[in-house]
Amino acid sequence: MRDVAVIGVGVTKFGERWNDSFRDIFVEAGLRAVQDAELTGDQIDEIFVGNMSGGRFVNQEHIASLIADHSGLALEGHVPATRVEAACASGGLAVRQGAQAVASGFSDIVVVGGVEKMSDVQSDQSTEILAAASDAEWESFYGATFPGLYAMMARRHSHEYGTTREQMALCSVKNHHNATMNPNAQFRREISVDAVLSSSTLADPLNLLDASPITDGAASVVLAPAEEARRYTDTPVYISGSGQASDTIALHDRRSLTTVESTKVAARRAYSSAGIGPGDVDVAEVHDCFSIAEIMAIEDLGLFEKGEGGQAVEEGLTELNSQVSVNPSGGLKACGHPVGATGVKQVAEATLHLRGDADDRQVEGAETGLTHNVGGTGGTAVVHVLSREAPK
Amino acid sequence: MRDVAVIGVGVTKFGERWNDSFRDIFVEAGLRAVQDAELTGDQIDEIFVGNMSGGRFVNQEHIASLIADHSGLALEGHVPATRVEAACASGGLAVRQGAQAVASGFSDIVVVGGVEKMSDVQSDQSTEILAAASDAEWESFYGATFPGLYAMMARRHSHEYGTTREQMALCSVKNHHNATMNPNAQFRREISVDAVLSSSTLADPLNLLDASPITDGAASVVLAPAEEARRYTDTPVYISGSGQASDTIALHDRRSLTTVESTKVAARRAYSSAGIGPGDVDVAEVHDCFSIAEIMAIEDLGLFEKGEGGQAVEEGLTELNSQVSVNPSGGLKACGHPVGATGVKQVAEATLHLRGDADDRQVEGAETGLTHNVGGTGGTAVVHVLSREAPK
Repeated sequence: MRDVAVIGVGVTKFGERWNDSFRDIFVEAGLRAVQDAELTGDQIDEIFVGNMSGGRFVNQEHIASLIADHSGLALEGHVPATRVEAACASGGLAVRQGAQAVASGFSDIVVVGGVEKMSDVQSDQSTEILAAASDAEWESFYGATFPGLYAMMARRHSHEYGTTREQMALCSVKNHHNATMNPNAQFRREISVDAVLSSSTLADPLNLLDASPITDGAASVVLAPAEEARRYTDTPVYISGSGQASDTIALHDRRSLTTVESTKVAARRAYSSAGIGPGDVDVAEVHDCFSIAEIMAIEDLGLFEKGEGGQAVEEGLTELNSQVSVNPSGGLKACGHPVGATGVKQVAEATLHLRGDADDRQVEGAETGLTHNVGGTGGTAVVHVLSREAPK
Repeated sequence: MRDVAVIGVGVTKFGERWNDSFRDIFVEAGLRAVQDAELTGDQIDEIFVGNMSGGRFVNQEHIASLIADHSGLALEGHVPATRVEAACASGGLAVRQGAQAVASGFSDIVVVGGVEKMSDVQSDQSTEILAAASDAEWESFYGATFPGLYAMMARRHSHEYGTTREQMALCSVKNHHNATMNPNAQFRREISVDAVLSSSTLADPLNLLDASPITDGAASVVLAPAEEARRYTDTPVYISGSGQASDTIALHDRRSLTTVESTKVAARRAYSSAGIGPGDVDVAEVHDCFSIAEIMAIEDLGLFEKGEGGQAVEEGLTELNSQVSVNPSGGLKACGHPVGATGVKQVAEATLHLRGDADDRQVEGAETGLTHNVGGTGGTAVVHVLSREAPK
């Protein structure tokens, strides 16, 4: 199996992109990544696209064909293009499929993208569309949308471990702070704990400012065989570990409401393939679709002990350039959450830090990065470990 | 790169499955394939699922998580599960991704499935849902659904090559005949050329009996490293070639209406990786979403010269146990076309013939099989070559 490197990244402005269509947004990210890698189109062997619900957000399936076409890689080159879907983990899985294509030798240069255009439907429709990531027959049919499902996880986490509303709110506060330094972020303004606690209730105990927003956006990374990476860039970053795991799609079938087992297993697999432990991670982009999700993530990834995530946030141990810098991009909460794009943006963000290219929000001396992307309430989780150091 | 073998296959009854849900149908196919390979659940390393539009047909995204869960592989084993989408080529791409996972060494035993539950929506809705495989902004928005697009291809093919309505109709007649011998087929009855020509017009010159139907169904194959295949079965079949190609998603952007360029390129790539030519193919499952599509397919795959496909059909050269047996399953027309499942069913069908397990419809002495799966009007094409003989 060949080792795999990231040789280019591109992320669009995240937000409400009223004047740009689905296809335009993707191509913008893809071109940025290809330019960053200093490639021309004829060097691209394969495309993978993460997208959750083009079918319902923009009436478009056959996503990867559209993307290849509008990137100019279909009529010339007939480049293979494949869409991958796992709800909000679609982007992370697209990166993993791209890495498999390079590792297997099927392809050398692979462009991975993630895209979602969510603002073209009414907001009640977007809630319903997103609810299709839960169990259609046993959750969403009965009105259990994601704010409600994560609210149950939050309540139980508070009950078992004493996690407070303020600790949850501090995740949002930190992520908004980080986003002020990210020009692509959707919300570039500071918020306070009071603002979170007094924002409108979504599903008690979670409020509006505990939740990631509806976002249009795209992200892209270019992958190459590790041994050839320095032909394209002086600062390759290596995908040294990859882990993916499933759990029951419905929350009520799990063994625990406060541990996302798929995250634990995916992390174990990723750490094992990278030959590192959670203590080695300098920068982590984790899946904070709701504030409580970030607390559970830093525990399930092993960055902190189970039950101590809230306290760690309160002590500032996850702030930029603290013990472990969590969500320097602003995370899903403040950078925004175009669901199919998020997992790719996480890999792009970690890569920038390992290259030393993250400007004002740079995690100093970052050697090892981690990305953590979740589908639904944890039916799917995918974790990647990224390293400055070439694999041995 | 490791070579890949098919060690088990399973196909459900195709048709209108009013009493079975999306998840039940998939699990039925998966269990049949796993039983055929004599595996237990704990031996399965990874799952890939081809599905076009669960989001719109059954309000369910996050398809692979659901499938892993209801197969009993999520709570125990946390088996990674990934959905792949490329419209009607979703199944073929799922097989290709599964093959990449084995070839790369990421996984050993991979279950690939394809599934679609299409009959739970009104028929006008299914036409609209399927139209999302075309260009949403430049085709379906203006009312160009697939019967209309393929009708333009048919008209032009007749204009350029003299292909007749009767030759097109004969594809449907042959495929219905083959389906009488396939217990899983949706339509197990003979039809006549007159019946096709007098059926109701869809989009002139194509009639109802030129078109594949709305179908519920699933198919599954189990893949393993070639060198380990005989530990599981006495009759392994090898995926000796795989090719995938893109073209413009919109028909009007193509260079030709009568050649599906993506099919030509995918076939060239597959033949090249298998080290064979089209003359070596004994049995071919091709993408006959409309009768004219089968004629174009057998030309673009190189089985017959361009423009001579209609004549070949008329001369009976594509009948069972003739020059090349095309669509012994009954094809999309008569076996049925659950869009996400079709590409997997094709590989399962070809495998049965190479194993000698195809009962009444057996292609005698079949050594080399080909599968051809198309998304939309050819924005995506994927071709696999299957062989009885182990790769060298």
